[in-house]
Amino acid sequence: MAGESKGSLMTVREDVRVLDATLRDGGLVNNFYFTDDFVRALYAMNVAAGVDYMEFGYKASKDLFDPEKFGKWKFSDDDDIRAIVGENETGLKISVMADVGRTDFHRDILPRSESPIDLIRVATYINTLPAAIEMIEDAKKKGYETSVNVMAVSKTGTDDLAKGIELLAQSSVDTIYLVDSFGAFYPEQIVRLTELYLSIAEKYGKNVGIHAHNNQQLAFANTIESLRLGASFVDGTVCGMGRGAGNCYLESLLSFLKNPKYNLVPVMRFIEKHMVPLKQKETWGFDLPYLLTGILNSHPSSAIEFIRDGRIDYTQFYQEILDDIG
Amino acid sequence: MAGESKGSLMTVREDVRVLDATLRDGGLVNNFYFTDDFVRALYAMNVAAGVDYMEFGYKASKDLFDPEKFGKWKFSDDDDIRAIVGENETGLKISVMADVGRTDFHRDILPRSESPIDLIRVATYINTLPAAIEMIEDAKKKGYETSVNVMAVSKTGTDDLAKGIELLAQSSVDTIYLVDSFGAFYPEQIVRLTELYLSIAEKYGKNVGIHAHNNQQLAFANTIESLRLGASFVDGTVCGMGRGAGNCYLESLLSFLKNPKYNLVPVMRFIEKHMVPLKQKETWGFDLPYLLTGILNSHPSSAIEFIRDGRIDYTQFYQEILDDIG
Repeated sequence: MAGESKGSLMTVREDVRVLDATLRDGGLVNNFYFTDDFVRALYAMNVAAGVDYMEFGYKASKDLFDPEKFGKWKFSDDDDIRAIVGENETGLKISVMADVGRTDFHRDILPRSESPIDLIRVATYINTLPAAIEMIEDAKKKGYETSVNVMAVSKTGTDDLAKGIELLAQSSVDTIYLVDSFGAFYPEQIVRLTELYLSIAEKYGKNVGIHAHNNQQLAFANTIESLRLGASFVDGTVCGMGRGAGNCYLESLLSFLKNPKYNLVPVMRFIEKHMVPLKQKETWGFDLPYLLTGILNSHPSSAIEFIRDGRIDYTQFYQEILDDIG
Repeated sequence: MAGESKGSLMTVREDVRVLDATLRDGGLVNNFYFTDDFVRALYAMNVAAGVDYMEFGYKASKDLFDPEKFGKWKFSDDDDIRAIVGENETGLKISVMADVGRTDFHRDILPRSESPIDLIRVATYINTLPAAIEMIEDAKKKGYETSVNVMAVSKTGTDDLAKGIELLAQSSVDTIYLVDSFGAFYPEQIVRLTELYLSIAEKYGKNVGIHAHNNQQLAFANTIESLRLGASFVDGTVCGMGRGAGNCYLESLLSFLKNPKYNLVPVMRFIEKHMVPLKQKETWGFDLPYLLTGILNSHPSSAIEFIRDGRIDYTQFYQEILDDIG
């Protein structure tokens, strides 16, 4: 009932790929204002740790978002990436995220032969799949690997979800991500969803990925549960940095995976030097208000505001979320 | 392979019992120096929240531990409990923990008819089971419910463990707890262990409990995984308060359980009023050093010291733990 395991705790699954989303998900904490020094060190860390992909940020439209109001990784210009990685002659691949409706992909996503980027990750809601598929096909034609994140599936009925995943699986996309946007899923729900995604994706020779949030302190547990069942792309961020309750901790993931190509030591050094100071300035991570939005399957924005305002009247806040979703 | 579920996410399992171990596990953070005001409010919270058991602390021997050096809940005198709960005319039951070799149980555990305590929880290592059984039988004879925590099982071979659980199941004990002392287990290991405990306990009509630690941020996930398979006694602490990385969050547990007798609101009020100030004075909860002792299946004391000393040289610390266990 709770699914057969693919692989075991003692062995290596060669199909697994780890993606570090610290800049992209963490950028939602600090409006993408990372120093170049930080980004260079993170890149070096990922290379040394054997991480498979590093996500630099979003490819957001400069028509929609004012470059004066965000750090550069909101836009992830190819030239800015190149200033960090040069020609990236390493085993680490580079990804960016492209939101449906917020990316000038015709203009801003160049042919892969001219770009340091390897993987375009399209992020979509279930009701914008045709636009997502258009972006996927555009990226594929330009020579990229592609993946797609279907967001907010905890608000989507299973029938619609299955139809949507089928549509995506029929596109050129390489990897379909199960995303727990609100940190609302328990492991047994992740089991069922992973099995649904895999049953469709495998028919078309596609991979399944997992991207979890930590509202209920289940990001790591849900990630390894999905992995156990056969998901092969797993996302983490250093110290779980990400909006609100944050993400699956990259250091937990690397310590879990038995592939000797992964190395935790560079990650520890990076945390020591770069994350400890950053944590003194920025706030993220599990806290009661995120648990409340998680269990109510609600967007974390209200909890982020609650914490930013220094409030501790949790009981009142709980009533406010109930009113919002009622 | 990963086990059949007992019950579902939508329904109530009437056999489930929640135990709040805030004073006992949290007492390991502050040497049991809780104010009476805090303890009274916690008791009122547990009654209002519908929690089944509240653990007041240890019944430690005053010959072995100097009462001048610890708060009173290290010893949990019946009179001190009675000063908080009176005759405890509520649905909440009261427990204390009695460590093998550290409890003068003949002297300090009175007949139940003279005591406000309902449940004696014996804590033992696998190599002190005869002494644990002696304490269990003593408590049973005095009229108490009994449970037993077998600690540090992540250091015990499965054959010895199975034999030990069988011995305990043949005693008068009511509930046998699976304890992840070092926060070292992944959910799939918890599945196998819970199935082992259940397969033996059920032969003798005993319950299985789960007591998890949060070194890898898996305390809640492991608790609900064990629960899913049929464990019925689940331990939590408010805000996960407990030694080192702490425990399963009581608020997560109550929000997960669907039994309408549980109520999260009193817990939120308690956190607002009592835990927010306490968190400013005391330190516990998930952090990288605990992840490292967890993945290396090592006692958290070195990590507690590392954090107390304000160190952040994680790489060096990692080498130190490796040396210790090597």
